[in-house]
Amino acid sequence: MIREITLQELDSAKFVSEKVQEISSAVGDRTAINALSGGVDSSVVTMLGHQALGKNLRTLFIQNGLMREGEAEQVVAMFRKLDVNVEIIDARKEFFNALKGVTDPEEKREAITQTFYREVFGKIVRESGAKFLLQGTILTDVDETVAGIKRQHNVFEQLGIDPQKTFGYRILEPLIQLRKDAVRSVGKALGLPPVLFDRIPFPGPALSARVIGEVTPERIETVRKATVITERLLKETGAFQYLAILHEDRVTGIRNGKRDFGQQIEIRCWDSTDARTASPTNIPFETLRQLAEEITRDVAGVVSVTYNIATKPPSTIEAI
Amino acid sequence: MIREITLQELDSAKFVSEKVQEISSAVGDRTAINALSGGVDSSVVTMLGHQALGKNLRTLFIQNGLMREGEAEQVVAMFRKLDVNVEIIDARKEFFNALKGVTDPEEKREAITQTFYREVFGKIVRESGAKFLLQGTILTDVDETVAGIKRQHNVFEQLGIDPQKTFGYRILEPLIQLRKDAVRSVGKALGLPPVLFDRIPFPGPALSARVIGEVTPERIETVRKATVITERLLKETGAFQYLAILHEDRVTGIRNGKRDFGQQIEIRCWDSTDARTASPTNIPFETLRQLAEEITRDVAGVVSVTYNIATKPPSTIEAI
Repeated sequence: MIREITLQELDSAKFVSEKVQEISSAVGDRTAINALSGGVDSSVVTMLGHQALGKNLRTLFIQNGLMREGEAEQVVAMFRKLDVNVEIIDARKEFFNALKGVTDPEEKREAITQTFYREVFGKIVRESGAKFLLQGTILTDVDETVAGIKRQHNVFEQLGIDPQKTFGYRILEPLIQLRKDAVRSVGKALGLPPVLFDRIPFPGPALSARVIGEVTPERIETVRKATVITERLLKETGAFQYLAILHEDRVTGIRNGKRDFGQQIEIRCWDSTDARTASPTNIPFETLRQLAEEITRDVAGVVSVTYNIATKPPSTIEAI
Repeated sequence: MIREITLQELDSAKFVSEKVQEISSAVGDRTAINALSGGVDSSVVTMLGHQALGKNLRTLFIQNGLMREGEAEQVVAMFRKLDVNVEIIDARKEFFNALKGVTDPEEKREAITQTFYREVFGKIVRESGAKFLLQGTILTDVDETVAGIKRQHNVFEQLGIDPQKTFGYRILEPLIQLRKDAVRSVGKALGLPPVLFDRIPFPGPALSARVIGEVTPERIETVRKATVITERLLKETGAFQYLAILHEDRVTGIRNGKRDFGQQIEIRCWDSTDARTASPTNIPFETLRQLAEEITRDVAGVVSVTYNIATKPPSTIEAI
């Protein structure tokens, strides 16, 4: 059982200095490595690792082909301003190969985990000689994995997997006692720019968690385009999280007066403080109309758009 | 090319007396038969036929297992008050057998058409000796069939099918020049009670048009329960049409703290005058919340509910 540090009891500055100290002690003068996705959790971990280890931390951005539009370039540019060097690793082929024909959500996550840890990141870690891996696991990931709701890609010990035996390195998870609100507070204390630590949550399996059914480069491109529109139009809501999901179900549409058996995008926009419970945001109807209009106009093949109106529970924030 | 009679140019009383005269002349002292679904179109046709033919019209309600909750009983009771006798024919087994394993929307419609005309209704018509079939085809059905958007179950001539050769009877379609708004006006002129001619449109293939993927008794029961809630809560909107659709895609949910890979219901509610174009109704957010709460609470297996926000075109009113 992991002891939670709530936002109320968190002393962010003290937390930062303790974690910097812990990472520094654990790694010593050896090297650590971490993967930065650009999300809040991995960004905070990168800064903690950077403060603890300086040049002895190697930070990679794995381009798995599942990220949002321009994401790799933006993340690298932002961290460059913070004097943190981030290497981009192009692994699109490896991930799409592993995802070919996979439709079950758990098998997708497993394919991504295996590709990430064994084939792509694991290989780099082994070749680099780094013995420590910094990860941004937070308490909600652990809860959901233990409860069997979702298998988060970075929760090993809770599942009885020894990463040292299985993957050959030790995992450090400095954020494991925190939930999302506390992580943001630590981000502020670390001096991260608001644009970074205020980012809406984005799942580990990236856009593959936003595609129901098989993940192909074409289907990822469809949901990526819908995501650009969704994020642009819903940014001003200030909501906890907003996302676009590509359904596998086909629905009837009309294009140029002819039947077009097309695709559907579902929009979700959540009010929440810690992701444990969430309610759909009461978005102005004009914004919903605008979302549907732009998505059906600009995203090829999409003839229908819906807005989620269920709460978590019994729904979850992501669809798969 | 069928000449449209618009609501503006329609003289309902004159239309009724002309159609009653036409039906009467065509049928003479022979008998006609018609199937009443309880929708506006077939209700209006039943009354026209009743006025034209009296006891020489035999009206059947085919219980195909795809109707809404209590629909057969309500329709029969309402027409009894109008002195029209309606026979209920239980054909649930025949329809579900024909729909087994069928997932393509066009094949579903075809299975229903074939079962209805050849196996169930066709058999009764042949045995009854009736030579005329009264049908509630309206102009929008013809447009959509010709355009290839949807294959309506009652449009034969437009598709080059001769019902006399194929099915052994002649089809009379007294409403074929009208769109929905004009049909309602004729309903008023016929003295139908508002509850009948003001009914929201309901598709020929009934709830099978509200199930994406295979139609089984269990899946129909799911969408039927969601439909009861949807119709009760959206009645007050006064919208043109509102409906619940059961998706085939599975989405993640949580029940009692455990993962529940469940089902999703999509709600559509349309503002429209003639079904040719339509916009989603701006429903109060509290009503949407209520819909989602009741559906996820009372409809077994459903963990997620969405609301359609796309217009027609490029969407269509029904999903399949």
